Amino acid sequence: MTEYALGGYMGQILRVNLTTRKMSKEELRPEHARKYIGGSGVGGRILYEEVPPWVGALDPQNLLIFSTGPATGTNVPTAGRHTVVTKSPLTGYFGDASGGGFWGANLKFSGYDVLVFTGRAHKPLMLYVDNGEPKLMSAESYWGMDARESDRAIRKDIGRMDARVATIGQAGEKLVRYAAIMNDEADRTAARCGVGAVMGFMKLKAVGVWGDQKVPVRDEKVAATIYKEVTAHVKTDPDKISFSKNGTPGYLAEAWELGDAPAYNWGRSDFGGPGDPGIEKLAYPGGYEQILTGTRSCYLCPIACRRVSQVNDGKYRTEPNVEGPEYETQAALGPNCGIDNVKALAKLNDLCNLYGIDTISLGGTLAFAMECYEKGLITRQDTAGIELKFGDADAAIEMTHRIASREGFGNILAEGSRRAARTIGKGAEEYAIQVKGMEIAMHDPRAFQGGGPHYACTPTGGRHTEGITMGLERNGRQVLGYPNPMDRFSTQGKGRAAKVIEDWWTAINIMGWCIYAEPAWGYPSEELLLRSYTAITGIPMTLRDAMKAGERVFNLKKAFNVKHGATRAEDTLPKRLLTLPGKSGAVVKLDETLPEYYEARGWDPATSKPTVEKLLELGLGDLSKDIWG
Amino acid sequence: MTEYALGGYMGQILRVNLTTRKMSKEELRPEHARKYIGGSGVGGRILYEEVPPWVGALDPQNLLIFSTGPATGTNVPTAGRHTVVTKSPLTGYFGDASGGGFWGANLKFSGYDVLVFTGRAHKPLMLYVDNGEPKLMSAESYWGMDARESDRAIRKDIGRMDARVATIGQAGEKLVRYAAIMNDEADRTAARCGVGAVMGFMKLKAVGVWGDQKVPVRDEKVAATIYKEVTAHVKTDPDKISFSKNGTPGYLAEAWELGDAPAYNWGRSDFGGPGDPGIEKLAYPGGYEQILTGTRSCYLCPIACRRVSQVNDGKYRTEPNVEGPEYETQAALGPNCGIDNVKALAKLNDLCNLYGIDTISLGGTLAFAMECYEKGLITRQDTAGIELKFGDADAAIEMTHRIASREGFGNILAEGSRRAARTIGKGAEEYAIQVKGMEIAMHDPRAFQGGGPHYACTPTGGRHTEGITMGLERNGRQVLGYPNPMDRFSTQGKGRAAKVIEDWWTAINIMGWCIYAEPAWGYPSEELLLRSYTAITGIPMTLRDAMKAGERVFNLKKAFNVKHGATRAEDTLPKRLLTLPGKSGAVVKLDETLPEYYEARGWDPATSKPTVEKLLELGLGDLSKDIWG
Repeated sequence: MTEYALGGYMGQILRVNLTTRKMSKEELRPEHARKYIGGSGVGGRILYEEVPPWVGALDPQNLLIFSTGPATGTNVPTAGRHTVVTKSPLTGYFGDASGGGFWGANLKFSGYDVLVFTGRAHKPLMLYVDNGEPKLMSAESYWGMDARESDRAIRKDIGRMDARVATIGQAGEKLVRYAAIMNDEADRTAARCGVGAVMGFMKLKAVGVWGDQKVPVRDEKVAATIYKEVTAHVKTDPDKISFSKNGTPGYLAEAWELGDAPAYNWGRSDFGGPGDPGIEKLAYPGGYEQILTGTRSCYLCPIACRRVSQVNDGKYRTEPNVEGPEYETQAALGPNCGIDNVKALAKLNDLCNLYGIDTISLGGTLAFAMECYEKGLITRQDTAGIELKFGDADAAIEMTHRIASREGFGNILAEGSRRAARTIGKGAEEYAIQVKGMEIAMHDPRAFQGGGPHYACTPTGGRHTEGITMGLERNGRQVLGYPNPMDRFSTQGKGRAAKVIEDWWTAINIMGWCIYAEPAWGYPSEELLLRSYTAITGIPMTLRDAMKAGERVFNLKKAFNVKHGATRAEDTLPKRLLTLPGKSGAVVKLDETLPEYYEARGWDPATSKPTVEKLLELGLGDLSKDIWG
Repeated sequence: MTEYALGGYMGQILRVNLTTRKMSKEELRPEHARKYIGGSGVGGRILYEEVPPWVGALDPQNLLIFSTGPATGTNVPTAGRHTVVTKSPLTGYFGDASGGGFWGANLKFSGYDVLVFTGRAHKPLMLYVDNGEPKLMSAESYWGMDARESDRAIRKDIGRMDARVATIGQAGEKLVRYAAIMNDEADRTAARCGVGAVMGFMKLKAVGVWGDQKVPVRDEKVAATIYKEVTAHVKTDPDKISFSKNGTPGYLAEAWELGDAPAYNWGRSDFGGPGDPGIEKLAYPGGYEQILTGTRSCYLCPIACRRVSQVNDGKYRTEPNVEGPEYETQAALGPNCGIDNVKALAKLNDLCNLYGIDTISLGGTLAFAMECYEKGLITRQDTAGIELKFGDADAAIEMTHRIASREGFGNILAEGSRRAARTIGKGAEEYAIQVKGMEIAMHDPRAFQGGGPHYACTPTGGRHTEGITMGLERNGRQVLGYPNPMDRFSTQGKGRAAKVIEDWWTAINIMGWCIYAEPAWGYPSEELLLRSYTAITGIPMTLRDAMKAGERVFNLKKAFNVKHGATRAEDTLPKRLLTLPGKSGAVVKLDETLPEYYEARGWDPATSKPTVEKLLELGLGDLSKDIWG
């Protein structure tokens, strides 16, 4: 095989049509690799070009794209990510989900940067990429299995226990609109935007990957040096040691203090009354210690922020040493559902991993339903006897089973809170805390005003991995133009801040790094990340270049949305966040930040469309006609 | 019950949520009845308001609306129509389909003007409206039945053989993207835009209606007089006698002479070589006589253009006295597929009625596949042994079975020609003769230049029932501003002509009349139709008013499309029609007619969007924001 023009890439895309069972390889166009880099950039460009508005999300003409970045699977650390890109069944617009673990790296070891699925199989299929050789096989025997069982059975059947498997559970099969794609024995996930429902619709149960090919790195020496530097930093810097030690669950107590974690469907500021430790029951250090059994890392990551957990007995019993709840899951299924039982939380988390369900959307949807129940919009008759009250963990667990099987009222909640609200009627839409149909992540924009324009405008809906301003607001960041901390309750400059951090996080993502590369590598990590990118690919990269690449991909997603019918009216937040003060005491003053955000973005304030000038500046001039006619 | 504000309406809409099984009645808003009149107007307004772009066609949040007009079921003749409105799974945009027979009239006799379905049943359901009382019942025992069997079984089970049933066959159940909704023992159909696939997705097998309520008519005397006049006219006017006698099949030979009927996937002008009578084998008078056994009428129609047919023996055997092929079916499955066997044609037609398949889209899709096969884009291996050649009726029949069951290559063709072409690749898109995903009807725009802008711009895709200019071009029409016949090969004035006839036909449709009301009532029929509308509703109506109402609804559909992502680029025709001369010797000179069409329509020529001025003029100013931001 001749060497690819750029380091970091295997240089190949695999196309799989599940209707015809035809497969083909094609070169990853070097100009696309340079321009869109990887992840949701390279995948997003393919989606943009090949999925027109008349193609629905659950449609054999939709694409399901697994896309890595140039850093993924190299010998620089914290680069174990892959991104799934598709037209989202939850939002109806651009959808992507980022997954960690080892799957993405192993996709590259098997010889591909990107997999593109289309079509719909007559009977369940799976793909196994055996060191470059793709094999499309029947998956009938795995259909109906949960994600962990499916992963194990597949590896046993193909005779490679060290293969990595991305698979859906029953939720994806049943087209639960917020179904996730699980990988690494259902411990890691690309969860958001309903990517698992698209996989289920296509009747693609799983994608196994294995290979022993090396990801080419242009300057091995520099890369090796960086690896050493970062590893040493993680092991000595107190902040990093703490993150290794506490993982994301270590943030819950702090989030609660800040008012960043919501409670009771974003509706109340209390959780755990007098004498009730509330948050502490779930937090780490705290109640979480009852379920914690260890830690794990993703591919070549010195942080190892992942928690291992188990519940040994009783009704919340889990398998030993399963993935523990992350902060997002803690908050979404904990205080936001009024649940303070850490074992029940572990059980709910495990069920989500087995069924293949996005825990954030599940938490948001259950909290919505609980509020509807308590307000009398739905009754026990609707729920077939389940007392769906805040804090009732057993009711939440039972409803989760019904959602995954689409049984009874679960069939309604399986559609997500936006659609469920339309079905319930009676003003239920007010209680659906979602943006563009996606339940928002566990960072309350009432606590950090930069979160307002971010949540409202991120093309993939209420999302935390595309640029949370919290760090910028709390600490400032010289290199990004914010030398000082900001007043988190002021709206001053927050529109621009949201834009800046979105562009930077998008850049990190498309390169294949984990968003935690930043804290791991240490501020200012930018220089080190960009030096790594250059060492890997051989392409010089300045911060300005990286920000521009992030901005380009962000605008590509936005352009997809505009083309598919999204309007300015959808750049908003649930009324509750705009009118009801959160625990921080504030409401989101979106009207104050949105104009600045649009201006910083170069988006027309009347329509929210990227201006022709902005598109031209980003090298996206070819999209102008789609956007402006 | 208090009297409704307007005559002609029962005044009630029934809402059915198939997910929750909840039903509710609401008043048809009188201002909507006045403004959008009925059919795709009243139904279209509901669709526009309630189905946003993020809702897909096959989505529990889509609506399936059965909508009648004020004339439907009254004692004025030729008003037996109902219209099904939904977001189309075939085009991804506004979808509607008009059905004849007795179902629409009986919906009104049962007390409703409009039925609005949403949601998705867990197990197959049917609705029976029993003289005003809606009953949602299990349809599990009918699931899997063909449309005729289902219709008969349902009427037997409910104990009302005089009820009318609209039902899907297996094609709708299997989500064939051009599945039809059949009614009256599968003899009549609302076929276009894939409405049957939406019904199948919702797991709604059938809708039975029965009632003995009278449709209120404001001036019974005038209505009765009109009935007598029209009936006498039909029985004495030579043209009308001929239409009664020959039905639509009487047009095939003439269409062929004019070059209006396509052959071999719109690709060749020969059909039947020397010594082979070709068209005559299928035409009436001609070969059609071999299958003809009688005629039938729709509700209160003195024309009775419907043909009854049967094949008595051999492999093309049908039940006795089934609905015979109409002109569209003759042409689409006859010359366009190269098939000249009239018995095979009758069999194909009957299969479409049983499975519930749109014959136009099936013909277009089969012709497309035959051309792909003959050109080597697909092989016998792809088709699992079927020699899918032009003229092979048995291959067409076998493939129709496979399409309805989505078996093998049928699974690809079940998606329609646009999607099948994308799956096949290799430049197959060139052979998909469709507009906006819908296979175009059997009127070749190369024979009448007004057909060019009409097919290119009609919001529901390549469609013949929303305004064919043929009559205007051949005969002129004083009252519509065309005193003289036009040169059918000239492009002069054809953009405007298309607009005028589209508005007028839309007006006829939303009032509940059959498009054949016009020839039946005799030119100039306009005055008589409008006088009837006034007699029925009590609302004065001038031709100008009617044209404006038609234009309003046409623009409503267009606005829906724009909102859902349709662009100027989709207002086009397949390249073949623009470059390859048809039997008439001409190509479509769309570049010459489109600018005039846009100007006549008041649509911005750069984007094809209705201008704000036009929307305001039509009382659709509230849509401006959706269209222009």
